Amino acid sequence: MKIVLIGAGNVGYHLGIALWQAGVEISQVFSRKLEKAAVSAQKTGAIPLDDLAKIDVTASVIIIAVHDDAIGEVARQIANLVSAASAVAPSAFPLITHTSGATPLSVFERTGLRRVGVFYPLQTFSMGRQPDFSQIPMCVDANNAEDLGLLIALAKRISPTVQHLDDRQRAMVHVAAVFVNNFTNHLYTIGETILKNESIPFELLLPLIRETAAKLSAGSPAAMQTGPAARHDEATIRRHLDFLEKYPAYRELYHIFTDRIQRVIT
Amino acid sequence: MKIVLIGAGNVGYHLGIALWQAGVEISQVFSRKLEKAAVSAQKTGAIPLDDLAKIDVTASVIIIAVHDDAIGEVARQIANLVSAASAVAPSAFPLITHTSGATPLSVFERTGLRRVGVFYPLQTFSMGRQPDFSQIPMCVDANNAEDLGLLIALAKRISPTVQHLDDRQRAMVHVAAVFVNNFTNHLYTIGETILKNESIPFELLLPLIRETAAKLSAGSPAAMQTGPAARHDEATIRRHLDFLEKYPAYRELYHIFTDRIQRVIT
Repeated sequence: MKIVLIGAGNVGYHLGIALWQAGVEISQVFSRKLEKAAVSAQKTGAIPLDDLAKIDVTASVIIIAVHDDAIGEVARQIANLVSAASAVAPSAFPLITHTSGATPLSVFERTGLRRVGVFYPLQTFSMGRQPDFSQIPMCVDANNAEDLGLLIALAKRISPTVQHLDDRQRAMVHVAAVFVNNFTNHLYTIGETILKNESIPFELLLPLIRETAAKLSAGSPAAMQTGPAARHDEATIRRHLDFLEKYPAYRELYHIFTDRIQRVIT
Repeated sequence: MKIVLIGAGNVGYHLGIALWQAGVEISQVFSRKLEKAAVSAQKTGAIPLDDLAKIDVTASVIIIAVHDDAIGEVARQIANLVSAASAVAPSAFPLITHTSGATPLSVFERTGLRRVGVFYPLQTFSMGRQPDFSQIPMCVDANNAEDLGLLIALAKRISPTVQHLDDRQRAMVHVAAVFVNNFTNHLYTIGETILKNESIPFELLLPLIRETAAKLSAGSPAAMQTGPAARHDEATIRRHLDFLEKYPAYRELYHIFTDRIQRVIT
């Protein structure tokens, strides 16, 4: 099985390495910037490309790992290449997938592509950090059962957790991910700001932050809610709101969370 | 140095074990419930008590690890015992500390206690999970320099991270902890609710949650904010708000966080 990777950003880069380490052949890596394609290709023995017209449309799977709003356009270009390649019999059309949690399969509609799917690693990727794919759920989907099976098999080579999610489920997972990743990170930023303004190192909060995440393996977050709101400790809540006087936006959030936690708990 | 522990809840229990493991003598453990005192005392070779009048006021340090709103009353009772114990010379008065992030040193005012302090482990404790004190910052304070030194030395026996925080600083750390622990856990609960309603296992989100916390060791959360809000990806934001139609409270939070993140990022 030969794979072509379109995109050498965080997702494409790390996915390519994971697949290659699992023994999957990455034949080409495309990026608009040849240097980026080269960095990624060097790790996986692939050929770097900055010309989309040169991608090998006889590959088994073409993985489009580009920004969400570029997926449709890239797919249309690939569809044109596929139909132009007279050497390609219809039965040998490659399977085209994107890697986006936020993008429905319908992004491929009206491209003329026949075999389309999703190969979505549910994780946050940063260039500096080596992701451990054995810890990353792979969420897959396809427009036909055979390709769904193919993507499940491919995903299992890099992760023990493979989940079939349809468009709606993947969209809801993506929304939930925004809450537990993006919004949680904003709460961390609030903690950092409050400490900075008191000349206290933010590192002091890191063990608490890590344990808050780690203890979920022991039980549901709903069952483990603690703190003044859950305890209905109105004296502490009042004092906290006083301390937050110079942070009106944080006060508002404090009010809203306290109210929500008390409604859920009561 | 002999220590008396008042309270055998999560904090008292785990703190007692950590001190004992560090070679500190725990002479007595008090709890209103003798069985709870016994469980804690058994781990540390201490004598379990359910009668506060029997505590040893010649101990070096008495650590009050009870609910915030009970600290003042327990302190008053201890003060009475100390002054009643004619055997105790004023210079041998024990140092009385509480373990609360939310409680100022002034809780000891008008108790007559002369040597008072704070011995606050900055972590969330659950009965089922063994905390690793080498990862828990100890925040200490005292009403005199000598006792501050004593508490810093005691804290260093169980943790490499010891921070002197005055009342205001500790209060602000406690507020920040509410954001990064209690409110973050509520965001986890929202993620769990959304997934449950789509029959998707919450476990799918755990690697993302853990990585969101873990990557803070690589940089400031302010610098690492990702997602549709930070990208000003209005199309995805609109779709997410549509998906959240049946969750008006989550929609409101989504709006507020998106707005806040965009203001901070812009």
